[in-house]
Amino acid sequence: MAAPRKPLTYSGMVDARERVAGRVAYTINMDLPNMLQARLLRSTVPHGRIARLDVSRARRVPGVAAVLTGEDVLQRPDVFPTFGPVLRDQPILAVGKVRYAGEPVVAVAAEDLDIAQEALDLVEVEYEELPGVFDPLAALAEGAPLVHDTPPRSGQTAADLIIHTRPGTNLCNHFKLRRGDVERGFAGADFVFEDTFSSPALQHVSLETHACVAQVESGRITVWATSQTPHMLRGQLAEIFKLPISRVRVIVPTLGGGYGGKTYATFEPIVVLLAQAARRPVKLHLTREEEFVTITKHAAVVRMKTGVKQDGTLVARQASLFFNTGAYAHIGPRVIKNGGYASGGAYAIPNVWVDSYAVYTNTPPAGAFRGFGISQSAWANETQIDLLAERLGMDPYALRMKNLLGDGQTFATGQVVEDCHFRELLAEAAGRIGWDWKAEPVREGGRVRAKGLACIIKGTLTPSTSTASVKLNEDGSLNVLTSSVEMGQGLKTALAVLAAEQLDLPVHQVLVSEVDTDLTPYDQGTVASRSTHAMGEAVALAMGQVRAQLLQHAADLLEASPDDLEIVQGTVRVKGAPERALDYGQVVRQTRRGNLLGSGTYASRGGLDPETGQGIASVHFHQGVGAAEVEVDLETGQVKVLRYHGGIYAGRVINPAQAELQTEGSIAFGLGQALFEEMVFENGRLQNGNLADYMIPSMEDLPRPSLFVLEHPEANEIHGIGETALPAVMPAIGNAIYRATGVRVTDLPITPEKILRGLAVLREA
Amino acid sequence: MAAPRKPLTYSGMVDARERVAGRVAYTINMDLPNMLQARLLRSTVPHGRIARLDVSRARRVPGVAAVLTGEDVLQRPDVFPTFGPVLRDQPILAVGKVRYAGEPVVAVAAEDLDIAQEALDLVEVEYEELPGVFDPLAALAEGAPLVHDTPPRSGQTAADLIIHTRPGTNLCNHFKLRRGDVERGFAGADFVFEDTFSSPALQHVSLETHACVAQVESGRITVWATSQTPHMLRGQLAEIFKLPISRVRVIVPTLGGGYGGKTYATFEPIVVLLAQAARRPVKLHLTREEEFVTITKHAAVVRMKTGVKQDGTLVARQASLFFNTGAYAHIGPRVIKNGGYASGGAYAIPNVWVDSYAVYTNTPPAGAFRGFGISQSAWANETQIDLLAERLGMDPYALRMKNLLGDGQTFATGQVVEDCHFRELLAEAAGRIGWDWKAEPVREGGRVRAKGLACIIKGTLTPSTSTASVKLNEDGSLNVLTSSVEMGQGLKTALAVLAAEQLDLPVHQVLVSEVDTDLTPYDQGTVASRSTHAMGEAVALAMGQVRAQLLQHAADLLEASPDDLEIVQGTVRVKGAPERALDYGQVVRQTRRGNLLGSGTYASRGGLDPETGQGIASVHFHQGVGAAEVEVDLETGQVKVLRYHGGIYAGRVINPAQAELQTEGSIAFGLGQALFEEMVFENGRLQNGNLADYMIPSMEDLPRPSLFVLEHPEANEIHGIGETALPAVMPAIGNAIYRATGVRVTDLPITPEKILRGLAVLREA
Repeated sequence: MAAPRKPLTYSGMVDARERVAGRVAYTINMDLPNMLQARLLRSTVPHGRIARLDVSRARRVPGVAAVLTGEDVLQRPDVFPTFGPVLRDQPILAVGKVRYAGEPVVAVAAEDLDIAQEALDLVEVEYEELPGVFDPLAALAEGAPLVHDTPPRSGQTAADLIIHTRPGTNLCNHFKLRRGDVERGFAGADFVFEDTFSSPALQHVSLETHACVAQVESGRITVWATSQTPHMLRGQLAEIFKLPISRVRVIVPTLGGGYGGKTYATFEPIVVLLAQAARRPVKLHLTREEEFVTITKHAAVVRMKTGVKQDGTLVARQASLFFNTGAYAHIGPRVIKNGGYASGGAYAIPNVWVDSYAVYTNTPPAGAFRGFGISQSAWANETQIDLLAERLGMDPYALRMKNLLGDGQTFATGQVVEDCHFRELLAEAAGRIGWDWKAEPVREGGRVRAKGLACIIKGTLTPSTSTASVKLNEDGSLNVLTSSVEMGQGLKTALAVLAAEQLDLPVHQVLVSEVDTDLTPYDQGTVASRSTHAMGEAVALAMGQVRAQLLQHAADLLEASPDDLEIVQGTVRVKGAPERALDYGQVVRQTRRGNLLGSGTYASRGGLDPETGQGIASVHFHQGVGAAEVEVDLETGQVKVLRYHGGIYAGRVINPAQAELQTEGSIAFGLGQALFEEMVFENGRLQNGNLADYMIPSMEDLPRPSLFVLEHPEANEIHGIGETALPAVMPAIGNAIYRATGVRVTDLPITPEKILRGLAVLREA
Repeated sequence: MAAPRKPLTYSGMVDARERVAGRVAYTINMDLPNMLQARLLRSTVPHGRIARLDVSRARRVPGVAAVLTGEDVLQRPDVFPTFGPVLRDQPILAVGKVRYAGEPVVAVAAEDLDIAQEALDLVEVEYEELPGVFDPLAALAEGAPLVHDTPPRSGQTAADLIIHTRPGTNLCNHFKLRRGDVERGFAGADFVFEDTFSSPALQHVSLETHACVAQVESGRITVWATSQTPHMLRGQLAEIFKLPISRVRVIVPTLGGGYGGKTYATFEPIVVLLAQAARRPVKLHLTREEEFVTITKHAAVVRMKTGVKQDGTLVARQASLFFNTGAYAHIGPRVIKNGGYASGGAYAIPNVWVDSYAVYTNTPPAGAFRGFGISQSAWANETQIDLLAERLGMDPYALRMKNLLGDGQTFATGQVVEDCHFRELLAEAAGRIGWDWKAEPVREGGRVRAKGLACIIKGTLTPSTSTASVKLNEDGSLNVLTSSVEMGQGLKTALAVLAAEQLDLPVHQVLVSEVDTDLTPYDQGTVASRSTHAMGEAVALAMGQVRAQLLQHAADLLEASPDDLEIVQGTVRVKGAPERALDYGQVVRQTRRGNLLGSGTYASRGGLDPETGQGIASVHFHQGVGAAEVEVDLETGQVKVLRYHGGIYAGRVINPAQAELQTEGSIAFGLGQALFEEMVFENGRLQNGNLADYMIPSMEDLPRPSLFVLEHPEANEIHGIGETALPAVMPAIGNAIYRATGVRVTDLPITPEKILRGLAVLREA
């Protein structure tokens, strides 16, 4: 931390009043004078040549201001027609070909949405359908249809990433981790087990769907966007529209949820193009149905091969992960890295060999999703741990405790880990659920109850950068300038507390800005549970600068040495002479500085070697456990999660109430993924792209979770906690279901049908 | 300056394209969803008790959202009901009494302006008229009606000002300057002359009238305002609404002109109150007619008593200045200081005694006006110089040259002046106009032509504070964060140039922000021709920080010492090894800093002792001259200014084209004041409050001015030049008219009527 501080904790949210009063100004509700509304026509086929596209009737509809096709985009020499954060493989609007059902083909801006829709209805489009490929394993097979004919160009964040595309195949990227000698590890193991697990594509289901308003002036672009990564979006728009970054302004009001779904550009370039064409502001917000085909969680198939000693010691792990990144890479090439390096789980395994693949298919693009690649591999890992225990006849709790990483041990990336609390967390979870390996499942009528455990490790974005500025005003109140995004997670509150404690200020004197990239300093993104940690540190550094100036100016005014001063409740005073004191406002006014300005930069070091996956995966590790008790109805296959204990390590907790709520939210997400959620495709066509058919948990489905947030009393570091509890939920529930029923489901979600099918198999066996 | 630089000059405006395309987003054109429109009911009497006020019918008009009176404001414990930048003497809405015709009494917010007007028409109000006082001399007389019964409280900017109000009188403030021994000076003079001069109340006539949009959330206020002093307005609103400054946000889009008329709060608090009452955004923009009763230039009566030697040496000056500050002090207490300390003009006079008074009357409040008190005293001073020369039988050019301040001499405030160029400027002006004292006026038909000179000194706000922040982005482009206000004067261009030159960047890579007090750092105000100087210096200091970081990071990356690096056209390179170079974007990206942040604070020292007027009046002095040739039609009294040469000293010129345009604008202003402009009151009731009756010059009236901007080749300092040419215009024209006609008009404007009357008197004599 930057300067001495008086640690504060705070419960509540600084923006609580606006929230309960319904006064938060979300982008989706935004209106500008003279603003047009936009709609998109989307491909109805998963792979096809655009044989005919006629928008002339659409253009003639009264009230239509602009109609654009991919060919129109190509006519613009000042526009780079494809984009993507890692690979520039995605056309702004489809050109020549469509690569997934739902891809934007025509965009219309009109006086209102009805007129826009009327125009879209008059577009004449014919596709010559091509053979598609929808599964990552099929897509890597010899002779599979190619999603992309030519290899794409690198985008802006690719600098530190070696992209292993293989032209002529559907391989989008390949992450490798090579540690120890995995073959020798298997040779030395008493048993080697190999299992395959899978998890489906999912939706983030933010309450606020994606929205963007674009306004263009000569040589300037302003967008209001639902973005978790405002500076990335700014950079992408600058790249696409060939402008200096200073000419692109991204303003991000509070988001109605993000969960990774609002990272990087998706449809925003289209809105800018429409605003340019119409010379008026344009708004496009996605319907819930469009959300389903805009960005998804990667479906994944994971093969785990594990060598283990008779006593349960894990000696070797080989993992192959096949992530379905959809038709465009988006941030998939990075997702596979995280899924890959965490394939060994939270365990000290000396020999690890990982191949993690991002694979193109003719399905909607997949991107970041709460946990970023971790839950796909944790599902495999933590399910297999229970399988191994079963095969060895061991208590899976004991197997975990035996192998869990401890301080000073070496993680799969070669990183020596510190501040490890896995055993403490797991013991707490096991204690709370009343874990007893020997206990038989409890039967009651046609229902059976049992318990399951899981334990996960994940990292945060590393290396990464956050910067902050602060202004101490002439009345001693404080403005914090940050590009971190408030999306309901309580970040404004956390940053206000971290700023306030540095000067012993009341939290209500602090105002944390919303994002305006013209004015608020750089942040890499509100992702990977990084902001309270990284932006918090940047704010503290900035406050340290202000604090030093404040002390120096006060020392001049009080005719004392800065060392003889202390900061107490909004005043600077001479130690031992409290009557010689000035409040901050007096210092600022009397020195005529107007305000005291400070800035801080958090820039973590690290990263993995692209050929071996060795290096610093994360500046610190997020540690999470879960313990579930489930009840399965043996007749219907329905699962009820009776109790769930979610535990995480948090370093230092800023806001206990919100730390618990974030953890509760993670558990609700995990429950949905464990039991209900799945995007169902048939030949590349989504079958359940709406919230009637795609099932998220209701409040009825949720257990009353018990949450525990482990805090280290002397922790200097603050861990982000937005995702930590999530990845353990699915395997903990899956393991509990297995212990209750003997049915081992390896492909999420664990539906009643799968359980009934498993029970039938057991009965037949 | 903060760092080595490669001086740039630039012609044009960075926002030229938006300007010519009509795309500048002025506040007056602003619209928010759900926004109400507001109108004010104003007092019809100059002084009166509100005998009856009934708004009940107005409240019942469909579409009316809020109706407020002064009594409603008093009911709000969370609102301080009066305000003012120096003295909190102005009620937000009149309470009990009205003090000038035009004072806001009732405010209405409604769905549209027609409904608001309909509601106002239904307000029942009766005044019991009280005797008023309208002239500053009458107002100071024994037994004059009192504008304020009780002495007002001090406001936020009063800290360094001793306010000499005298309870039970209409004295609002008194500025004193005491230098040398003025009585002994007069005793030692060969002649002592005393003359009285006056100048009327005026309008700024910005193209955009005042406008304000207010939006309130729980515990937060946001206003978009046409303000030259956003941080002052923010502070005033925080004071009125009893909020921390961080909870008040003032956003200032580009202004359509300011000229001092948009400084400090006037009606903005009303708009906030309406928004609070209606719980919706509210907009109020003033009609042109309302402008006339919102803020004016101080009418003034100035008595000059001057002791002079036979050879023209000025030995003593006593000046009494009576500024009519109207019903409320506004910034009047500071205006009188500037008018006061400049009463000796640009001359080295050893004995000076000045009493400068701000006096309350029942007329609209007077405030800042391009030149801030200087033109009232310069009109007196420079007219009297010609009168003295006439009486001494001397060339007024020679009289000026004899007494003008030179480097190392002492100004009336005791300040030793440097960088003086008065003689050079006056010689140039005289040369250009073809000055020849002996020359007789040229008669042609009924018209007569002659020439006149004038020479003025003025200061800039001292002490004063400006702060700036800059962000060097990850592509090497730059954002400048400033709270200086662009109002057509080209400030964005000037600051972009000053930022760009510090890093040898193309100007189009730099974006200068608009003002948003949540985000842009403190600035005292875009007033007193201070911004290019003061904010320019703050920007340069901020850039110096960025430059140092850039060099240090580049040194690390290039494995060199920062001292061995040079900055050339957007790259940092090793001296003598130009191939070892990185562009700025590479440095930012490779060091993973996100952006490089810098901030700078300009805080000038100075100020005058309130009892003696001695001290530092200004960090540097603005120096201006004018030479006019006029033609007077002896039959009609009409004056045509044939030629005008305006000269100023600029220090260093950033943008030659704009320096000339600013000077030309000053001359147009001065021409209007010399010949046409005057707010005409009858018993406190304005007779010409519209642009049909209040005459500003048309393009037809303007001479083709010749402008010269003197630049010192090695000038490090940049002088603001927005006002410098203005104060000389009126006396130069007046002096020319006198030389043409023998008619000496001492009260502005010099109308045909006054000339004809003077000619008649001459004929009779």
